[in-house]
Amino acid sequence: MSVPKERLDAFLADLRAAFPEGLDLTTELDTLAPYGRDESDLGEFPPQALVRATSTAQVSRILALATKHHIPVTPVGARSGKSGGSLPIEGGLALSLEKMNRILEVNADDLLMVVQPGVFTAQVDEAAEKLGLFYPPDPNSAAYCTMGGNVAENAGGPRALKYGVTRDYVIGLEWVLPTGEVLRVGRRTGKGVAGYDLVALFVGSEGTLGIATEITVKLIPRPRVVKTALIPFKTVADAAKALSSVLTSGLWPRTLELLDEVALQAIAGRGLPVPPEAGAVVIAEMDGNHEAGVLSELAMLVDQCASWASLEAVVAQDESQRERIWAVRKEVSPALRALTGKKISEDIVVPRSKVPEAIERFKAAGKREGLTVATYGHAGDGNLHSNVLYRTREDWPRVEAVLAEMMAVTVELGGTITGEHGVGLAKKRFLPLEQPEPLRELQRRLKVVLDPSVTMNPGKIWE
Amino acid sequence: MSVPKERLDAFLADLRAAFPEGLDLTTELDTLAPYGRDESDLGEFPPQALVRATSTAQVSRILALATKHHIPVTPVGARSGKSGGSLPIEGGLALSLEKMNRILEVNADDLLMVVQPGVFTAQVDEAAEKLGLFYPPDPNSAAYCTMGGNVAENAGGPRALKYGVTRDYVIGLEWVLPTGEVLRVGRRTGKGVAGYDLVALFVGSEGTLGIATEITVKLIPRPRVVKTALIPFKTVADAAKALSSVLTSGLWPRTLELLDEVALQAIAGRGLPVPPEAGAVVIAEMDGNHEAGVLSELAMLVDQCASWASLEAVVAQDESQRERIWAVRKEVSPALRALTGKKISEDIVVPRSKVPEAIERFKAAGKREGLTVATYGHAGDGNLHSNVLYRTREDWPRVEAVLAEMMAVTVELGGTITGEHGVGLAKKRFLPLEQPEPLRELQRRLKVVLDPSVTMNPGKIWE
Repeated sequence: MSVPKERLDAFLADLRAAFPEGLDLTTELDTLAPYGRDESDLGEFPPQALVRATSTAQVSRILALATKHHIPVTPVGARSGKSGGSLPIEGGLALSLEKMNRILEVNADDLLMVVQPGVFTAQVDEAAEKLGLFYPPDPNSAAYCTMGGNVAENAGGPRALKYGVTRDYVIGLEWVLPTGEVLRVGRRTGKGVAGYDLVALFVGSEGTLGIATEITVKLIPRPRVVKTALIPFKTVADAAKALSSVLTSGLWPRTLELLDEVALQAIAGRGLPVPPEAGAVVIAEMDGNHEAGVLSELAMLVDQCASWASLEAVVAQDESQRERIWAVRKEVSPALRALTGKKISEDIVVPRSKVPEAIERFKAAGKREGLTVATYGHAGDGNLHSNVLYRTREDWPRVEAVLAEMMAVTVELGGTITGEHGVGLAKKRFLPLEQPEPLRELQRRLKVVLDPSVTMNPGKIWE
Repeated sequence: MSVPKERLDAFLADLRAAFPEGLDLTTELDTLAPYGRDESDLGEFPPQALVRATSTAQVSRILALATKHHIPVTPVGARSGKSGGSLPIEGGLALSLEKMNRILEVNADDLLMVVQPGVFTAQVDEAAEKLGLFYPPDPNSAAYCTMGGNVAENAGGPRALKYGVTRDYVIGLEWVLPTGEVLRVGRRTGKGVAGYDLVALFVGSEGTLGIATEITVKLIPRPRVVKTALIPFKTVADAAKALSSVLTSGLWPRTLELLDEVALQAIAGRGLPVPPEAGAVVIAEMDGNHEAGVLSELAMLVDQCASWASLEAVVAQDESQRERIWAVRKEVSPALRALTGKKISEDIVVPRSKVPEAIERFKAAGKREGLTVATYGHAGDGNLHSNVLYRTREDWPRVEAVLAEMMAVTVELGGTITGEHGVGLAKKRFLPLEQPEPLRELQRRLKVVLDPSVTMNPGKIWE
C-alpha cells in the first residue's frame, strides 16, 4: 500500500514550507530502503519519505501536517524490533527519532534519568552504573535498540523476572499526539496517582497512539554482588520442572534463562561450559549486596534443581566468566538462524506452571510438520522465545501451521501471544484468539480519541 | 445534589423488576447514613439508595440500568478512603461490593491470587504468607480496607519504597463498564504486552471508569528476614537530609518512614523507644533472605545516617518489638487528630531531594496562619502525609489557605498533589495546578468513551 503521489506531494510541499530553516527530509530510494526493514523477517516495506527529526517542535509540526493530509506515519527507532512495529506497511512517512539521542538529565538525588528517544538502552544503565544506580530492563538488543522503541514495545529482557519491564521504570513522558499536541504526562516523583495513568497507556502502545520525545525513567539502587550459575539438565522437560520448583521455594533470582537442546547445539563450541550429554541448560543469576548471602542463595537454587539435574552445575568464578556466559546467550538467536537459514521467533508467555507442557506441545507441533522448534528465553517468567526453523519460502505454509498451533496452545494454557516484542504486524492475526471483539473494539475506540484520522502507525496491532 | 424522585423511582422499579429473585436493595435512611461518610472528613453525603451486590451479573445489570436512567452510581468498598472517592455527592445509588468478599484462587505455582473486590487487603498477604509468598502493598488501613478500593485508588503504603504500589501487582481484572459490559482485561502470566494496558488505565481510576469485580494479583517470593531500626534525630530537617543520603548510597530499604516532632508528641507514652530530646524519628526496614546480610545492611544504613543523627538508634531485637513499632506507627493519624480535635491529612509527593524543603515550607505556611502542620509518612518515596491540625469549623478558611500553599509549593518543587489517596473530591480543585486543561480534557474524553452517560462516580477527580 502507498499514498497516492498527489496527496504525498501536497504533504511534502507543506512540510518543506513549514520548515524554512531546513529539515532532514528525504525521498531518495537508496536512503529509504533500510527503513523498510527490521528484525522481524516480515519483508520489505520502504516508506515513501523519511524525516529524521531533531526536536519535539519538529515532531509536533510534522504529525499535525500528516494528520491534516491523512498521511500514514510510522515512528522509527533502531529498527531492531521483532514484531514489525516499525515497518511502514502503508507507505507514507517514516519518522525517525534516531537523531534525538541525548541524555538530558541524570539525577542521583531524585533517582531518575531523562533521555531522548534515540538514546540506546544500554547507555541508560551505563550512566546509572556510574552513580551506583541501576536501570534493569535489558532486552537482548540493549546495545543497539533505543529507549523510544523500548517505550513503544514495553521491552523486557532476562532481568524482568525480578525487576520488571520498561513500563515499571518509565514514570514520565513528553508525548506528541498524532494531532501534533504536545503533552507532559506522569511525574518525577517516587509515586503519584493524580488522574488516569496515561504513561502506562502510552508505554507499549507500539507507535499507534503518538510518539515519546522525552522519557523519564526511575533508577533503583544497584546491587553490588551478582553471581551466575549454569545448570545443565538431561532434557528440557527436566529443566522446566526444576524452574517451576525454584520459584515456589522462596528464592528470587534475577534471571532464569533456559536454552533447549537445539539452542545448545546452535552455540556448541563457543565456550559455554556445558557437558556434552546436556539437553538443556539454565542460566540462573542471584544478586544482592552481601557476597556470602548471594552465594548461599545461589547454592540453594542449585540444590533446589538437584532432583531434576543429574549433571554438575558451574558457578561463574569471576566477572569475565560471567560476561562470557551472557555473550554466548546473546548469540543464540543468530546461531539458531544459521542452522537452517531462516527462522521465526515467537514470544509467547504461559503461566509458569505450564512451561513444561508448552515446550513439549510446541516441539510436537513442529514435528508434525517436519520442522524443528527450538525454545530458549526467559522461562522463569514463562516467556518463551520458541523458534520455528525453516529453509525456504516454500516451507512457509508449514511454518504458518506450526505458529497457529503454538498460539492456540498458548491461549488454551492461559497465556498471552506476546510477552515483550509486541503484536505489531507479526501477531495481529492471532490477537482475536486472546482478546474477543468487544475488548479489541474498545481499544480501537480509545485510539480514535487520540488519533482521530487514524494515521499513526496504521495496520499495527489492530486489523 | 440528588436525583429527582420520579427518575429515581423509575430506576428502582426497573431494578426490582430486573431481579425477581431478590436484591439487597434499600432506601432506608438509617441504613443509608453510614454510606454517606468516609475517612476524608469532607462531610456527609448519603446516597438515595444502596445495593450490596453479590455477583458480577448483578453489578452488570445494575450499571446498565443506572446508565439507562442517568442515575449517578458511586462504588463503595470499606469507606476507608481519605480523598472522598466513595462519597455519593450527587446522591443516586451507592453500589457496595462489601459482600463480594471471597478469595477465589491462591496459585503458588503461577505466583498469583484471584480475589473479589470486598476482600480485605491484609487477607491477601496473609494467604500469600502461608505459601511463603508476598503481597507487598500495605496501606495503613490494610486490616479493614478492601482490594476493590485499593484498585480504585492505586493504594500504596510504607513498603512501596522498595516494592511498589497496587498497580505494580494487579495483572488482571474482571471489569464492569458503566454500560454494564463485562470485560476481562490483563493476564495470568508474568509478562504480557498484547494491546493497550487497560489494567493500568483502570487501576487508580477512582471509580470513574467502572468497577472491578475480580482482581488477579501477582505474588512474589517472601523475604525470610526483616530487620527494623528506629533512628532518632534532633530535628526533622536532619532526618530528611539523612534519608536523602541513604537512598543514594546504594542501600535499598523496604521502608523509610518519617515522624516529625508533632507526630512524636502525639504518640508519646505509647512505647516507642525514642529519647525525649528527639525531634524526629525514622523507621527503617531492610529485608532479604540472609540474616547476617540483612543486619549488616541495616547497620550500614544507620551508619549512613550518623552524620545527621546524634542520638542512639535502636534495632528491634525480636518480632514483638518490631510489631510494637508498627502498631504505634499506625496510631499516628488518630493520635494527631486527638491533639486538636480535627485535622486534614495531605498526601503530596515531592522529588526525594526536595523533602527537607517541602517539610520546612509546609510548617512555615501553617505558622503564618497560626496552625500546626505535622508531617509523617513515606519520606523515602517523597510521599509526605502532612497534616493541618485545627479545632473548629471557624478555622477552616485558614486551613484552606495553608492547604492551597502546600499544594502550590508541592507543584513548584516538581511534585504531585497525591501519592496514594487519590484526587477524589478532596483534591479536584487543586488538580489544575498540576495538570493543564488540555491534559485534563483528554482524560475526560477517554472517560466518556467508557462512560457515555457520565454517571460513574460523578464529581470525582474532574470538576
